[in-house]
Amino acid sequence: MTATTAAHHREQPGGIMSAEMAEQPAVLRRILDRGAPAVAATARTVAARAPRFVLLTARGTSDNAALYAKYLLEVQLGKPCGLTSMSTVTAYGARPDLTDVLAVTISQSGGSPDLVASTKAAREAGAITLAVTNNADSPLAAVSEHHIDILAGPERALPATKTYTASLLTLYLFVQGLRPGGGDGKAAAEALPGLAQSILDRAAEVRQLAARYRFAERMVLTSRGYGYPTAKEAALKLMETSYIPALSYSGADLLHGPLAMVDNISPVIAIVTEGRGGEALQPVLERLRGRGADLMIVGSEAEAARGTAGFALPTAGVPEELQPILEILPLQMLAYEITVARGQDPDAPRALAKVTETR
Amino acid sequence: MTATTAAHHREQPGGIMSAEMAEQPAVLRRILDRGAPAVAATARTVAARAPRFVLLTARGTSDNAALYAKYLLEVQLGKPCGLTSMSTVTAYGARPDLTDVLAVTISQSGGSPDLVASTKAAREAGAITLAVTNNADSPLAAVSEHHIDILAGPERALPATKTYTASLLTLYLFVQGLRPGGGDGKAAAEALPGLAQSILDRAAEVRQLAARYRFAERMVLTSRGYGYPTAKEAALKLMETSYIPALSYSGADLLHGPLAMVDNISPVIAIVTEGRGGEALQPVLERLRGRGADLMIVGSEAEAARGTAGFALPTAGVPEELQPILEILPLQMLAYEITVARGQDPDAPRALAKVTETR
Repeated sequence: MTATTAAHHREQPGGIMSAEMAEQPAVLRRILDRGAPAVAATARTVAARAPRFVLLTARGTSDNAALYAKYLLEVQLGKPCGLTSMSTVTAYGARPDLTDVLAVTISQSGGSPDLVASTKAAREAGAITLAVTNNADSPLAAVSEHHIDILAGPERALPATKTYTASLLTLYLFVQGLRPGGGDGKAAAEALPGLAQSILDRAAEVRQLAARYRFAERMVLTSRGYGYPTAKEAALKLMETSYIPALSYSGADLLHGPLAMVDNISPVIAIVTEGRGGEALQPVLERLRGRGADLMIVGSEAEAARGTAGFALPTAGVPEELQPILEILPLQMLAYEITVARGQDPDAPRALAKVTETR
Repeated sequence: MTATTAAHHREQPGGIMSAEMAEQPAVLRRILDRGAPAVAATARTVAARAPRFVLLTARGTSDNAALYAKYLLEVQLGKPCGLTSMSTVTAYGARPDLTDVLAVTISQSGGSPDLVASTKAAREAGAITLAVTNNADSPLAAVSEHHIDILAGPERALPATKTYTASLLTLYLFVQGLRPGGGDGKAAAEALPGLAQSILDRAAEVRQLAARYRFAERMVLTSRGYGYPTAKEAALKLMETSYIPALSYSGADLLHGPLAMVDNISPVIAIVTEGRGGEALQPVLERLRGRGADLMIVGSEAEAARGTAGFALPTAGVPEELQPILEILPLQMLAYEITVARGQDPDAPRALAKVTETR
């Protein structure tokens, strides 16, 4: 997107967010064409250090990307992983022994002081530190031993969209590079830019879904496995643009309590990743259908047809672990369209700052 | 509580939940008097194995207890910790190398098949396994190398209350026992049963708060550090009893997006633990006050007085890491009272089963 296009889009509510969502196929292409070699090189260097555990640190949208990486690392690499509670380091001064630990910090801006502080502390504690950011000149990149640029280009809208999908693809390539004999993962991802474009072209379809949910007072999002980060990120998008309280649960957690909120009270959006995650979600979907829940399904054509409403993804030939990069797109669009339908401006959520200065 | 008391209480809506909340001082006393020696012995055995990393597995209310344990383990013991994504093992068959890893599974019933399966897998993968349950005869206790009984007595209400505070105290004693020269932690906790009783005696005060929030369409809960699990558990209680969508965020995450939902739209309940967690939350509280948010504060008398509404906790002399055991009490009571005020039955949330049969 050129500066002129941005200025043009700015004139209408949500123009910036909309333009940045539209850039996603080009960003994915750029990562595959220009970013992949550096990612593979960094992965080789890190793999040579043979980390035993991985700690992931992030906030907001990047935290959902970190959760995606956690699934990849646990399932594909068999590394035990943890998402860190930053405050244990920044507020309580915890100094765990991080020998053999890979500490990955993910941040669009690379500017949050608490992320910089906790990454610095991790490095001092012996961790192999890796920053994944959209700004190679950021303080976070500077304090980390390794840095990977997600190449998404400047993100101006407050709700992050292209930096999310860019983070997912970058993390996917990184984990493939860590796998012994795993190749660079590029081949499996080659179809993504085109598929992403085909989804983004379906705005009219999303607008119909938005009409269905614009008056919802709350929403519940659920998934299992690789789709669970999608559920969390979609909930965050819905909340920060439309202010609809959107609650996300893994399918198993949903049955543990919050199911009481479903029924005719809350529509449910289920992300049914084609593969083992989607299979594991089936008993939850059956339970929801049995309760007569309004159930919108984002997944394969067959799955989408089994919901009260649905958005069919072109999942044929896409490995399960890459589907999250497509899954989030209609949900970003849904957040955008619901917000516009409610007469609000997706570009200007109240009170959000692009770099959060938590200390 | 005897069976007769339970039968008596059952006659009124919420009678079971109310009776179980009232048992908490006695349960805490029982853990200190009868449970502590076994907990200390298990801790010594585990400490001798010198685990390097801790993985915690749980669902629902127990997952919030696991998060509390994560703070203790990271801050007091300097052990890197992770909360596991069970589906990576149960759905995807991940088999990470868990040598040197302590795998703690927390479950009230000890009966969920997926917890049993993932604990079994962790043990086969080389982990030191510990089950923390309210049922020594449970399948989970059977598959774990070590087991600790939280001694809460049968829990009949679907919203878990006494098993939550019992889990927290048990996990606290366990982590103290892991610390080199840490003692058994009992002395610091001796005051808790009495303080818990003094909070439970203040139902009239909570009823006034419930009157203030009974018509809320959504609520936001926030905290930092040790109080963050309290925020998550309070949100779960509110949702599963009253069905009010209650969203919990660490203070830092709140500034990253969901703050757009605050203002005059959602009341905010902040848990301000006296100590470093509460200090780290101050900038968030200032931001909320600056936006004119309706802010209910649960914390020390001084902090509570600085909210739009508040509930003052007797925190004097209570170490920061034990305050969560007190913090949750007024919030359990609030969930109960709001639910009763809305004409619903806290004992009978729709669709909840006490043992969740996720596979």
